[in-house]
Amino acid sequence: MTVWISRRPDREVADELATGRGALAGLRLAVKDNVDVAGVPTTAACPQFARVPDRDAAAVAALRAAGAVVVGKTNLDQFATGLVGTRSPYGVVRDARRPEFISGGSSSGSAVAVATGEADIAIGTDTAGSGRVPAALQGVVGIKPTVGVISTDGVVPACVSYDCVTIFAADVGLANRAMTAMAAGAADRPWPADTRLAAPPNPVVAVPDRLPLLDATWRAAFDRAVAALSQAGATVVTIDFTAFLAAGAFLYDGALVSERYSAVGEFIDAHPEAAVDPAVAGIITRGRDIPAHRLVSDRVAVEALKRSALAALEGIDALVVPTAPMHPRIVDVAADPLGTNARMGTYTHFCNLFDMCGVAVPAGTAGDAQFGVTVLARAFEDAVALDVATLLTGQDTPHDAWPMAAADSAELLVFGAHLRGGPLAHQLTDRGARFAGEITTAPRYRMTMLDSSPAKPAITRVADGAAGSALVGHRWRLSPGALGSFLAALPAPMQLGKVELADGTWRTGFGCDGQAAAAGADISGYGSWTSAVAAGAAG
Amino acid sequence: MTVWISRRPDREVADELATGRGALAGLRLAVKDNVDVAGVPTTAACPQFARVPDRDAAAVAALRAAGAVVVGKTNLDQFATGLVGTRSPYGVVRDARRPEFISGGSSSGSAVAVATGEADIAIGTDTAGSGRVPAALQGVVGIKPTVGVISTDGVVPACVSYDCVTIFAADVGLANRAMTAMAAGAADRPWPADTRLAAPPNPVVAVPDRLPLLDATWRAAFDRAVAALSQAGATVVTIDFTAFLAAGAFLYDGALVSERYSAVGEFIDAHPEAAVDPAVAGIITRGRDIPAHRLVSDRVAVEALKRSALAALEGIDALVVPTAPMHPRIVDVAADPLGTNARMGTYTHFCNLFDMCGVAVPAGTAGDAQFGVTVLARAFEDAVALDVATLLTGQDTPHDAWPMAAADSAELLVFGAHLRGGPLAHQLTDRGARFAGEITTAPRYRMTMLDSSPAKPAITRVADGAAGSALVGHRWRLSPGALGSFLAALPAPMQLGKVELADGTWRTGFGCDGQAAAAGADISGYGSWTSAVAAGAAG
Repeated sequence: MTVWISRRPDREVADELATGRGALAGLRLAVKDNVDVAGVPTTAACPQFARVPDRDAAAVAALRAAGAVVVGKTNLDQFATGLVGTRSPYGVVRDARRPEFISGGSSSGSAVAVATGEADIAIGTDTAGSGRVPAALQGVVGIKPTVGVISTDGVVPACVSYDCVTIFAADVGLANRAMTAMAAGAADRPWPADTRLAAPPNPVVAVPDRLPLLDATWRAAFDRAVAALSQAGATVVTIDFTAFLAAGAFLYDGALVSERYSAVGEFIDAHPEAAVDPAVAGIITRGRDIPAHRLVSDRVAVEALKRSALAALEGIDALVVPTAPMHPRIVDVAADPLGTNARMGTYTHFCNLFDMCGVAVPAGTAGDAQFGVTVLARAFEDAVALDVATLLTGQDTPHDAWPMAAADSAELLVFGAHLRGGPLAHQLTDRGARFAGEITTAPRYRMTMLDSSPAKPAITRVADGAAGSALVGHRWRLSPGALGSFLAALPAPMQLGKVELADGTWRTGFGCDGQAAAAGADISGYGSWTSAVAAGAAG
Repeated sequence: MTVWISRRPDREVADELATGRGALAGLRLAVKDNVDVAGVPTTAACPQFARVPDRDAAAVAALRAAGAVVVGKTNLDQFATGLVGTRSPYGVVRDARRPEFISGGSSSGSAVAVATGEADIAIGTDTAGSGRVPAALQGVVGIKPTVGVISTDGVVPACVSYDCVTIFAADVGLANRAMTAMAAGAADRPWPADTRLAAPPNPVVAVPDRLPLLDATWRAAFDRAVAALSQAGATVVTIDFTAFLAAGAFLYDGALVSERYSAVGEFIDAHPEAAVDPAVAGIITRGRDIPAHRLVSDRVAVEALKRSALAALEGIDALVVPTAPMHPRIVDVAADPLGTNARMGTYTHFCNLFDMCGVAVPAGTAGDAQFGVTVLARAFEDAVALDVATLLTGQDTPHDAWPMAAADSAELLVFGAHLRGGPLAHQLTDRGARFAGEITTAPRYRMTMLDSSPAKPAITRVADGAAGSALVGHRWRLSPGALGSFLAALPAPMQLGKVELADGTWRTGFGCDGQAAAAGADISGYGSWTSAVAAGAAG
């Protein structure tokens, strides 16, 4: 039993599954054992460190509130220090398919539990790549949100500045649902008022200008994933990867390890009898004697690299990288514990240092190994990463992206040039608006032609008692900042206000100056701009 | 010449003053000597540290671009380490009026240059209070912006995480003009999309529940300032000051001094011959041997205090504190250099640690001393602090607050219940909207009564060729986030779109659904809602 550190009795789980309610009802949840579940010891993979929390971590509480049922606590690289899954006194967590290979870590048990189907969703954590590397090696999805948008309350700290709670699931859709529930819980950091809620329909995606450590087979796998993305409509560009690679070295080789010492170093020093993995102990105790001014200068250096990296990403929606550069055997790790681990973080280490978010998705195979890529985006552009990852997997983009559970959003109903695919839709998608489906108004409206270029309809309400039409349009969701900026740029005679829908609710949408609307031909009979255009009556 | 470390020749300054153009033309600018002016040595008050920069600091460049003329570089507490103005090998900077008293520091020369009239505006820096304490003691205004909104490019770092560039001027209006020019330059941090651009008309202002170190005279001076604020319309509440006081100790007594060592410690260690002030050397070299994990834990502790402090400020617009608790003599500092300095920071130290901004303004006298208070606000609420400070000085709130030079803003023209003072104006002011004056539309509009509560007019455009009226309304400025959130909450039949002004420009403002507007009585003849109400025709 190396996947699990503790499991709840099957009977108890079955009873709870049968009675659950909420968006995640019926789903079995595995929890990495550095995250608190009330009444169950949190070991962080060190038995002597264990303590029994009296309440759930914020992330666990949010998932349980949505109906998920905890099935157990999973094994991990001790103190979440590692990307391999071998650093635990509870045993090595092996690859789900090929037991001589590593699982990836540190969220090793959580990823394997999802890969084997023992859990539907699993909580991991990610500081250096622990929510992504095991996802890739195990062929599952891992969502690593922007630092702070999910509270780390109830999580054993690894590097307090960079720790994230993550989700593993078999596909992006389920991972998005679980993140939605988790994001509705507590947060340590608010979402901005101009949060992008979607990727544009044809995103610009960057790939690194070099792929260190990948052999020809792995390179070919990456190239296939990039080709699929291009095929699906993305514009692929190459960027200088220097700053990204340079930052990675700071995470374990620089003064930032002092954060790990601050978290558990005094425990290790005070408990020489504790079963501490030698590699983990070496890394953490190295953080004891580093002078503070070196931490200051390392942070300044990382900030400078971050500025370079973000400059390289200017005008780009997302960065796609191989999640891991190889899939080592357990013996490879034993032969070179630190070297192998460092190599596994080549494409993950920089992410949290640069305040980026990411979605790790399976992308075929590289020889006998499962291959995965990570879609990375800037802080708070989690919905952009989600959409590009969805594009890569060939699935339909969902109407709801999980950041909308927490970020303020508004809606806008459109009827003409701003319909999805329309000539002015880019004014919304450039501002991060998300397509959220078709709507039909109450039968109280009139659609007339405006004399404009591009051609547009005017939507106006008929007088009380007069005969009106039910008109079909589209609904967008967008941030308040995007809505305000869109309105500020909107030319006369267009106006925005409330529109009555068929269900009797009033939603924010397009209207028009009454005089301008009255001047044009009535095309209400077509029922929608799309039909009017198709009939040759408009456009 | 203890105020100045270097001065430009009078002739050169006079020539430049005579030919200057821009918003700050004709204004003499003093620059603290830890901020680069191209071609002039930057000493940071240590002659051996001096180097000649080949370009202006970003802040200096922005002020010069707006027409300000540099007159010289001012003396400071060495390496911007101190709040007293005595720690410089270039001599003690004395109080402008009472030479046996200190000037306050570290931006001592800059504050005194403004107090004596040798400069109209002056650049300071502020990490622990250096842009506020000398403002208070010298009876001038000091604006300490949110960390990062003015780039520190070209500034000798003190504590790189907390350093700010500040402005001194004789009054809030001029300080706001200078900040406007500076904010138009480079920034290290973007403004949020929901930046508050104003304080509400009747702000809620907090005062500390205790006033350590103030004697009866100073307390009375503070009470008078608070009474004046209350008189001017503020609601004054008392808050628990514990977290604010507790944080202050971390700045010099904790591991954060390692940031100071990181900045100039190696220089001090490598140059035993340099004229380094003993108090400054003691503080900075203390930062050499602090372990990094203590810096980590101190930052965690400061973050916890910040959370408490911000929770105490929930629902409150600004916090008003005495800027300094006393005005020491130079001999008092000599007798207890560290103790006196620490006491001077009682009401300033926490500010940058909590990511707050502030405006220090004169507020009468305390015995023979000049007394000052600082209005503090949350990060990016610089306009709120500016307005509350303006309220305190009894001046009119300007239509432009300096953050508008850099933060995205939109506008909204209103004609009825959202006019300043109107029953729904709070929907705008609660969202941080700023009143920006009266406007008149092109003579193409019609105003009718809507059947609503509160009473509202509908503004609609007349048909081309028909006779219309020029209507008077108000202009608000607000963030895109505020505009979007306002629109999302706006009920039918109100609509927002473009309105043509008398000058032919089209601006975002109120319109109305045409059918609803057509139903009401025409009150266009009154020219404005205010006149219609006054005439008994509306409201």
